[in-house]
Amino acid sequence: MGGKLIVFEGVEGCGKTSQMQLCSEWLENLGVSVVVTREPGGTELGSHLRRLLLEKAEDKPVAEVTELLLYAADRSQHIEQELKPNLAAGKYILCDRYTDSTIAYQGYGRGLNMSLINQLNYIATGGLESDLTIWLDVDVEVGLSRKLLDNVGLDRIEQETIAFHRRVQQGYAHLAASHPSRIVRVDGSLSQEAVQQVIQEILRVHLKELP
Amino acid sequence: MGGKLIVFEGVEGCGKTSQMQLCSEWLENLGVSVVVTREPGGTELGSHLRRLLLEKAEDKPVAEVTELLLYAADRSQHIEQELKPNLAAGKYILCDRYTDSTIAYQGYGRGLNMSLINQLNYIATGGLESDLTIWLDVDVEVGLSRKLLDNVGLDRIEQETIAFHRRVQQGYAHLAASHPSRIVRVDGSLSQEAVQQVIQEILRVHLKELP
Repeated sequence: MGGKLIVFEGVEGCGKTSQMQLCSEWLENLGVSVVVTREPGGTELGSHLRRLLLEKAEDKPVAEVTELLLYAADRSQHIEQELKPNLAAGKYILCDRYTDSTIAYQGYGRGLNMSLINQLNYIATGGLESDLTIWLDVDVEVGLSRKLLDNVGLDRIEQETIAFHRRVQQGYAHLAASHPSRIVRVDGSLSQEAVQQVIQEILRVHLKELP
Repeated sequence: MGGKLIVFEGVEGCGKTSQMQLCSEWLENLGVSVVVTREPGGTELGSHLRRLLLEKAEDKPVAEVTELLLYAADRSQHIEQELKPNLAAGKYILCDRYTDSTIAYQGYGRGLNMSLINQLNYIATGGLESDLTIWLDVDVEVGLSRKLLDNVGLDRIEQETIAFHRRVQQGYAHLAASHPSRIVRVDGSLSQEAVQQVIQEILRVHLKELP
């Protein structure tokens, strides 16, 4: 069985973390060897970069191009150190965010230079795409209120305005429309159990080799 | 008087630090407003990145593309936060290393993808070149033995082989030959006083507006 890169995407509070956990347990029960990881911060180097990117801004804000370069650096390290070796070893990788997050958040959300984003996504990945991307689609208000109820404090991205998160949402909608075979939308407003059932169905259909 | 970006380049131990210091004192005595800075590490963010790049490798080495992206991130932040505002304020900036270091060290020295290096240099700088680059040319052996005599411990780059530093040296020679109006070679094997005198002459010739 070959390795697979399965990415989970969506706005804050869409339920990625718990769905990835459930999905990982399900796959392991099927006897599949699973790795759960994330961007940014999926490597030791990346965890330093994640702090620079998401923690409270210092006196001097991170310049826009710098921000894109740091996300790209996190990604290229993650790919070389985690994704490629695990794919080569035949593992199923469940990855919390990948290239589409940069397009949705930095491109659609923040309005940064989209052609630069695409250029850096390509430099960082060398063209490595996900085998399947699950987009957990929930209303921005629903997602953010879930985050607020978690009461764990909001990072720099989560503190952006509702309008920002709506643009991110639209970004995901455009990406899903443009890449219908790679990105599958899942209604994230359903119950946790229902969402997980839909995800398992999608994985069965798209990754035909599942036991 | 307009701002100027004056970059100092060369192999380890070429004398950049002390020559920049002397040059800064000379310019200030002429009544010129001077800023001394460096890459990597010229900003608070950059000092974090410098540590990631130059300190002892962790278990997992930094991937090559990641290394280039981190240097570019350091550079773009440095440009937005330090270089552009100081140039706009009419300052003379003396900068320890800039784009040519990436070409010489990562390109010629380590053999990383030169077209990617040029692409990232352009992304990071948006085309901002130095007004003048002083290349302090010393034999690799001379430079490294100076560093060893300093007895301050060698960082990851300084620990590379002699062959590596020779390739870096050749890189500088090629760059100087390709950009004769921007890059000026100075014989760094002369006495500190003689080198400084040559540098002051060059600055007088190239930056005609000096008082």
